[in-house]
Amino acid sequence: MTAFDSLERLFSRLSALDDALGILSWDRDVMMPGGAAERRGSGVATLEGLRHELLVSPMTNEWLAKADAGGDPWREADLKEMRRLHARAVAVPGPLVEALSKACSRSEMAWRRARDADDFAALLPDLQVVLDLTRESAQAIGEALGLSPYDALLDGFDPGMRQAAIAPVFATLAHDLPPLLGQILERQASAPEVGMVGRAPFPVARQEALGRWMMERVGFDMTRGRLDVSAHPFCGGATSDVRITTRYDESDFLPAFLAVLHETGHALYEQGLPAAWQSQPVGRARGMTLHESQSLLIEMQVTRSRAFVDFAAPVMARFFDDGGDWSPETLYRHMTRVAPGFIRVDADEVTYPAHIITRYELETAMIGGNLALRDLPEAFNARIKDLLGLDVPDDRRGCLQDIHWPLGLWGYFPCYALGALTAAQLFEAAQKDNSGLMDAIRRGDFSPLTGWLHRTVHERASSASTIEIVEDATGRPPGAESYLAHVRKRYLED
Amino acid sequence: MTAFDSLERLFSRLSALDDALGILSWDRDVMMPGGAAERRGSGVATLEGLRHELLVSPMTNEWLAKADAGGDPWREADLKEMRRLHARAVAVPGPLVEALSKACSRSEMAWRRARDADDFAALLPDLQVVLDLTRESAQAIGEALGLSPYDALLDGFDPGMRQAAIAPVFATLAHDLPPLLGQILERQASAPEVGMVGRAPFPVARQEALGRWMMERVGFDMTRGRLDVSAHPFCGGATSDVRITTRYDESDFLPAFLAVLHETGHALYEQGLPAAWQSQPVGRARGMTLHESQSLLIEMQVTRSRAFVDFAAPVMARFFDDGGDWSPETLYRHMTRVAPGFIRVDADEVTYPAHIITRYELETAMIGGNLALRDLPEAFNARIKDLLGLDVPDDRRGCLQDIHWPLGLWGYFPCYALGALTAAQLFEAAQKDNSGLMDAIRRGDFSPLTGWLHRTVHERASSASTIEIVEDATGRPPGAESYLAHVRKRYLED
Repeated sequence: MTAFDSLERLFSRLSALDDALGILSWDRDVMMPGGAAERRGSGVATLEGLRHELLVSPMTNEWLAKADAGGDPWREADLKEMRRLHARAVAVPGPLVEALSKACSRSEMAWRRARDADDFAALLPDLQVVLDLTRESAQAIGEALGLSPYDALLDGFDPGMRQAAIAPVFATLAHDLPPLLGQILERQASAPEVGMVGRAPFPVARQEALGRWMMERVGFDMTRGRLDVSAHPFCGGATSDVRITTRYDESDFLPAFLAVLHETGHALYEQGLPAAWQSQPVGRARGMTLHESQSLLIEMQVTRSRAFVDFAAPVMARFFDDGGDWSPETLYRHMTRVAPGFIRVDADEVTYPAHIITRYELETAMIGGNLALRDLPEAFNARIKDLLGLDVPDDRRGCLQDIHWPLGLWGYFPCYALGALTAAQLFEAAQKDNSGLMDAIRRGDFSPLTGWLHRTVHERASSASTIEIVEDATGRPPGAESYLAHVRKRYLED
Repeated sequence: MTAFDSLERLFSRLSALDDALGILSWDRDVMMPGGAAERRGSGVATLEGLRHELLVSPMTNEWLAKADAGGDPWREADLKEMRRLHARAVAVPGPLVEALSKACSRSEMAWRRARDADDFAALLPDLQVVLDLTRESAQAIGEALGLSPYDALLDGFDPGMRQAAIAPVFATLAHDLPPLLGQILERQASAPEVGMVGRAPFPVARQEALGRWMMERVGFDMTRGRLDVSAHPFCGGATSDVRITTRYDESDFLPAFLAVLHETGHALYEQGLPAAWQSQPVGRARGMTLHESQSLLIEMQVTRSRAFVDFAAPVMARFFDDGGDWSPETLYRHMTRVAPGFIRVDADEVTYPAHIITRYELETAMIGGNLALRDLPEAFNARIKDLLGLDVPDDRRGCLQDIHWPLGLWGYFPCYALGALTAAQLFEAAQKDNSGLMDAIRRGDFSPLTGWLHRTVHERASSASTIEIVEDATGRPPGAESYLAHVRKRYLED
């Protein structure tokens, strides 16, 4: 067995562990009885420890030193990914990994209490430990990979993405969006009032049947996945077994419907990864930016388009059969309402980037040592005021709303906004490459779009960087132009 | 860290893997989409391979050689279990394990086709490979543990159980049961006809609500378990997360109800294992005989008793609310109907042992080299004729009906019958120790019974052998007396 074969075998075993962990994680959020939480937690920690030990074993070093991928581009890319994953894993000393993991557990619990009590000071000590250890860990990874500490964190969520690429894009957004938002709100205020879509209550069974029908229509393969219910919608599971969730509210069907479409975008990416490489690092999804681009492309670009609404409104009318108003116009107005708000996860596509820019600017400052944690609430509220014109009334609706920092997920936020921009850019390119694409969507035929995404994004997996994949698909690296053009067109011209 | 501490840590990691495998197995049968089967299969094989490697690593040998449990009986018993599990794992050479595993996969598929086509000859070549490799493996384990090949197999399912203990018990049954069955059938034939219980259809939602209510009433802890649906009822899951299943038929509620009670018996055992030892070998259920005794004690001894029926019939009437006949007498007659049949899993408690004795005699002969596979159908049918007076019409209803042999589970069958006998013996002792036990059951109070089972069986886990546990609880080793007395009392005197 060559060194490369040995590495393939090792990473194939790690992939089996990842799949097991994926199903266990889905199970925890969808199926697990509450009393099993503690035991499950320590079981998962054991599996993750085993995974880490396998990856950093002395043999891996030896194989990586000797491995020859033989010039085949996918094998070369696979080897590159192996080296990257190994370098990240060995960069952080075991005791630091463990200390950070424990600090995050404590801080997550403290965050739940602090958020409920609207008491940032109560979170401060635990969050400070997480920040300190995260900076230490980022420093170590950065030194190993030749990256700045923040880029080292970013690279963990979107390999190859760098602050230098993000900064100018976010600066453009921060400059252009506030005036654009003003124009949109003005235009929206002058439009006639819009009535309800359909007629509440919307029975859960019908919402579920509609969601299931629509996700299959868009291209979700039910023989290799599931739809279930959880407190927060997500896409998880394992290779060949992609599981999405939503949550239902009988007074409004739209949140569950849009969550299903959003998660279907993630799922199409996972289900479209090349089967031949499914147990290798190169066969995995590229990163959070492209992942988010796929979910937002379906949820924001497609589902809220006039073409989709023309197709979907009569389908919904048939599923709910409640004699309500299911006109495409009413549905479209609901799907494209813009309203600045405090909560990131409830934001529309126009105001969403402001939430991310705020967090990005603050987390780079905190990781760089230029913002003390105790000054976070004030800085947070000031930036929300600048970008959205809102006065944050309390930290619960301010810097305490997200779980990311208490959970140690620093460097994750920018992927959400980059994903939104990339979604617009990919969708624009897909339409350029296929002039009949929107007409097909209006007929409920998603294959021209999903076929294009499959070729340009899904089946490339991790064989190239996010920037390369976007460049190859659209002719330029991820930027703000397509997104801004899309927002102007949908909200000021249409 | 002492050698014993290192072993505890190793087995705790193995236990985390076992729990992961338990949830994955439950998931496969209850949740997994069909298209994930192949990938899941290879993922599980990888985890099992990792598990095996951890167990047989050279360090384990060293630790076992040096380990000192310090005289504490539980730690001593734990070390004994560790040695047993390790000895079994190292006894069979890797290539033989792999060959047997592959042969079983092939033979399982061949069995499905052969059973559907009623074609034993089509299964013969693949089953012969499984038998040959099983004999080779049994020989190797037997040599390592100082056991005969058949005892080596038996010991894998019920540690400490030996053919020498089973043979006289089964001989008694084979001698006493056929005439007893004759008397019972005669008595039953002279009883008046019995009408339907309730009124079909029995809606699945109501069947499920009844099952859930009853399992909780009997003692199932829903905060540490679940009830779901699968093609074949089972009890699985993980430590602190015990999951049972049933299947529903709207034309008859009894099979699903009895399956829920049966699996609840298994679940009470699992949920009652000592929490302090939950990740150690000594903390696991003792074996299949005691496990089956717990399920059959609930399903056969309790659920089909007059006391339980008096309690349950009005509960059922309330859940189904269909105006049908829910008198305890009608229900009791249905729950205690005896009818010799061809299919083991459908057999009542009187005819069940005959199915097992047949299989036990034949599998000991095959493992011992005294019966050729090609002669199996004839031998099988002859024994069914002796014991049940039935002429087996085809192999599908004969030696092709069970998956056990094609799957390599030789030595498993006797545990079913031993479990039935032990159930009777334990239930008799529980009533002797607690004279108010049946009255409590008639009031729907199961705590005197479950408390007794908890003390005598559940919380002893694997700290003693099956025979020791049964002796301590009942004053004698597992035998046929209590079971035969129970059958006479219920079916000839009551």
